[in-house]
Amino acid sequence: MNFVDLIEKKKQGLHHTRDEICYIVNTIMSESANDSQISAWLMAVCFKGLNEDETAFFTEALASSGDTIDFGELKNSVVDKHSTGGVGDNVTITLIPLLAAAGIPVAKLADRGLGHAAGTVDKLEAIPGFNTNLTTQAIVNQVSSINAVIASQDKNLAPADKKLHSLRNQTATVDNDALIASSIISKKLASGTNTIIIDVKYGSGAFMKTAEDAVHLSRLIVNIGKQLGKKITAVVTSMEEPLGRAIGNTLEIIEAIEFLKGNIKTGDLAELTYSFAAIILQNLDMYENTTEAVNYLRGLVESGKALEKFRELIKAQGGNPDVIDDYDRFELPCFKIECEAKKNGYVHNINAYNIAHAASLLGASRDKYSNTIDYSVGIYLNKKSGEYVKKGETLYTIYSNCEESTKAAQRFCDEAFIISESKPAHKSLLYEIIRNDEDDDV
Amino acid sequence: MNFVDLIEKKKQGLHHTRDEICYIVNTIMSESANDSQISAWLMAVCFKGLNEDETAFFTEALASSGDTIDFGELKNSVVDKHSTGGVGDNVTITLIPLLAAAGIPVAKLADRGLGHAAGTVDKLEAIPGFNTNLTTQAIVNQVSSINAVIASQDKNLAPADKKLHSLRNQTATVDNDALIASSIISKKLASGTNTIIIDVKYGSGAFMKTAEDAVHLSRLIVNIGKQLGKKITAVVTSMEEPLGRAIGNTLEIIEAIEFLKGNIKTGDLAELTYSFAAIILQNLDMYENTTEAVNYLRGLVESGKALEKFRELIKAQGGNPDVIDDYDRFELPCFKIECEAKKNGYVHNINAYNIAHAASLLGASRDKYSNTIDYSVGIYLNKKSGEYVKKGETLYTIYSNCEESTKAAQRFCDEAFIISESKPAHKSLLYEIIRNDEDDDV
Repeated sequence: MNFVDLIEKKKQGLHHTRDEICYIVNTIMSESANDSQISAWLMAVCFKGLNEDETAFFTEALASSGDTIDFGELKNSVVDKHSTGGVGDNVTITLIPLLAAAGIPVAKLADRGLGHAAGTVDKLEAIPGFNTNLTTQAIVNQVSSINAVIASQDKNLAPADKKLHSLRNQTATVDNDALIASSIISKKLASGTNTIIIDVKYGSGAFMKTAEDAVHLSRLIVNIGKQLGKKITAVVTSMEEPLGRAIGNTLEIIEAIEFLKGNIKTGDLAELTYSFAAIILQNLDMYENTTEAVNYLRGLVESGKALEKFRELIKAQGGNPDVIDDYDRFELPCFKIECEAKKNGYVHNINAYNIAHAASLLGASRDKYSNTIDYSVGIYLNKKSGEYVKKGETLYTIYSNCEESTKAAQRFCDEAFIISESKPAHKSLLYEIIRNDEDDDV
Repeated sequence: MNFVDLIEKKKQGLHHTRDEICYIVNTIMSESANDSQISAWLMAVCFKGLNEDETAFFTEALASSGDTIDFGELKNSVVDKHSTGGVGDNVTITLIPLLAAAGIPVAKLADRGLGHAAGTVDKLEAIPGFNTNLTTQAIVNQVSSINAVIASQDKNLAPADKKLHSLRNQTATVDNDALIASSIISKKLASGTNTIIIDVKYGSGAFMKTAEDAVHLSRLIVNIGKQLGKKITAVVTSMEEPLGRAIGNTLEIIEAIEFLKGNIKTGDLAELTYSFAAIILQNLDMYENTTEAVNYLRGLVESGKALEKFRELIKAQGGNPDVIDDYDRFELPCFKIECEAKKNGYVHNINAYNIAHAASLLGASRDKYSNTIDYSVGIYLNKKSGEYVKKGETLYTIYSNCEESTKAAQRFCDEAFIISESKPAHKSLLYEIIRNDEDDDV
């Protein structure tokens, strides 16, 4: 076999055999790999696609390119949650303790964030001492002992995917469903989890711009999962507006703690957390009825059990659990600027992309993995869509360490808000749930 | 500017500005160039193309990436000839001495061949001692003194094109008109020649498979040449059947010598050589009428002046001119196998691809630049299309140094010949001539 011929084949829109896909992934992993050839092939895939069989072969080959985690006795019951990425998205941090409090073993392995938002492991590192770099054995042990772990994706899990991730970012070959799906699922295969919920976001603050695109990707993910023996539920959700009120690492951790304390009972963060947790409970046959599942989950928050689980998680990973009771234990920013509304009216929309860009200007995310993140900075949305604001009232708050970036961030935030006289209709975040075991037609 | 954004732009089918094209070529030339990005961009170009403006910008930028040759007083009159590559194509070796004998300064800078046929400089190196690695100054001096030079393309002429050439071969991004045209013309710009004839071949033994594709590329080449101030004539010619009777380095040099001796007066090699030379004479306003031009050129061969010019050229470049009078001075192969026709009939076609493949099996060409070429081996076509052959008569002759490859080559050659009872109609090789100064519609 010859890589040039395989590139030519894909360029002509022909389909690869399993052997050809294995050859490609072996080449990616070989020391003499020719990144030019891999990149040309990736671009040809962006134009000509991979069909479901090719995507499944590719996913398996990526998963087999390195180590895999074996959870032993828990093998068939470990749960995982993944998001394709949004703005102010801290649902993983609310969801994992909640599920663990329900007695469900959860192992969340995540990449660091790149681009307009930080990742879950970045956010957790805002907690002083919190260590996300765990060995495979430490991950397995922690799930056995406290039901929960949130760690960085080890470099030996699906390493071919890691290499591709870096190449795709450099070569404008990120936006292809087959490549996205295989990347997500290969990591789940390697990380040994079995029941998986994937939040596929669309909108101004997401990678997918339309619900239709998100549904298309979701179906592919669920189908490939099914072919490879994983029970995946994809939930298509809106990311037109930032999730919750906090955008920025420390701010999002504090917001998650507030949720776990029972202080945030309604709104989009609560909606998504309870919806996802209920889907998992139903997938595990613990509850048939969504209302009953949500009532049970609300009880875990009200009773403080979910918060206790988060405290255990922080302790287990070397973090300082005192942050839960005293937010001043977090690193604090120099400035806190309350920005006022310029007119009376209802908030109709808050453009997620603009807010994300403002947060990145403040230093809340990174462009390159070598750059550092400023955990303390961010934006707090005092008003969200559907809420009334009076002229002069605080619309949002900027947490910053730099006057110049504050001004730039403020410009983007001001542009992000649309305020008008009429009250907007309430829009549900959940667009569609796509399951393994159903006919996936709408 | 950012390369990823430029890849994304081309992927979306948008057009690059001149500055963007310069940025891309500067990146190609920079030491920190990311070949992955260049390759992804090349693949996006294969799918979305470059328009004529982009192609002209790209051509200029490639030409400016290194040194350029200045022929001084001869600046506006130096002639060059280029072929997109065929099988048994030794027209450069017959044409350059002929033009030089007509008093026209000719500088032919060529790449080495890769793939199914060797290049002109490879063929000339079959002459013991012949040196094609000349300095820029030596090239200029030789044109001034004897009107003719055939040398390797210096690595400092259009070096960005050289780098792209290597990347394109690895990444299945060779077959794009804009990339082919810019590669050809950039080298002509850098090499300082002014009146250029380009033989754009189509058919089984050529890169372009159809006449339509060859015409399309030819128009682009002529238009880009016009934009950049070069007088280019593109001649679309058929390469369904090998050119001449000799395929292989020494064999083709001997055939060229036979032509220059006046021993080959008709047939495809004579047709193309005289046609191209006549076009040049007309482009330089030396003759208005093709018949008169050809008569003059035939006279240069009959009188021995063209052969004498070739002898001068060989001497000037360190080769042994005695090969002209004694072919045994060439390196000789171990075996000469005369292969017989298996039935009576007229030769209808000789598949150029099969013959080229047979010659490459014998060692007449190379797959990688690091491989060596066996100058002595090749195939001689005792019969060509339109000629009658009797069963048992020699159809073709194999010159070889290896029994095993001889057998394999023989299989391909046998398959290449189509023999049938009726006499085929004579087909002209010239399909279309596309000039600078004409409306380029058919």
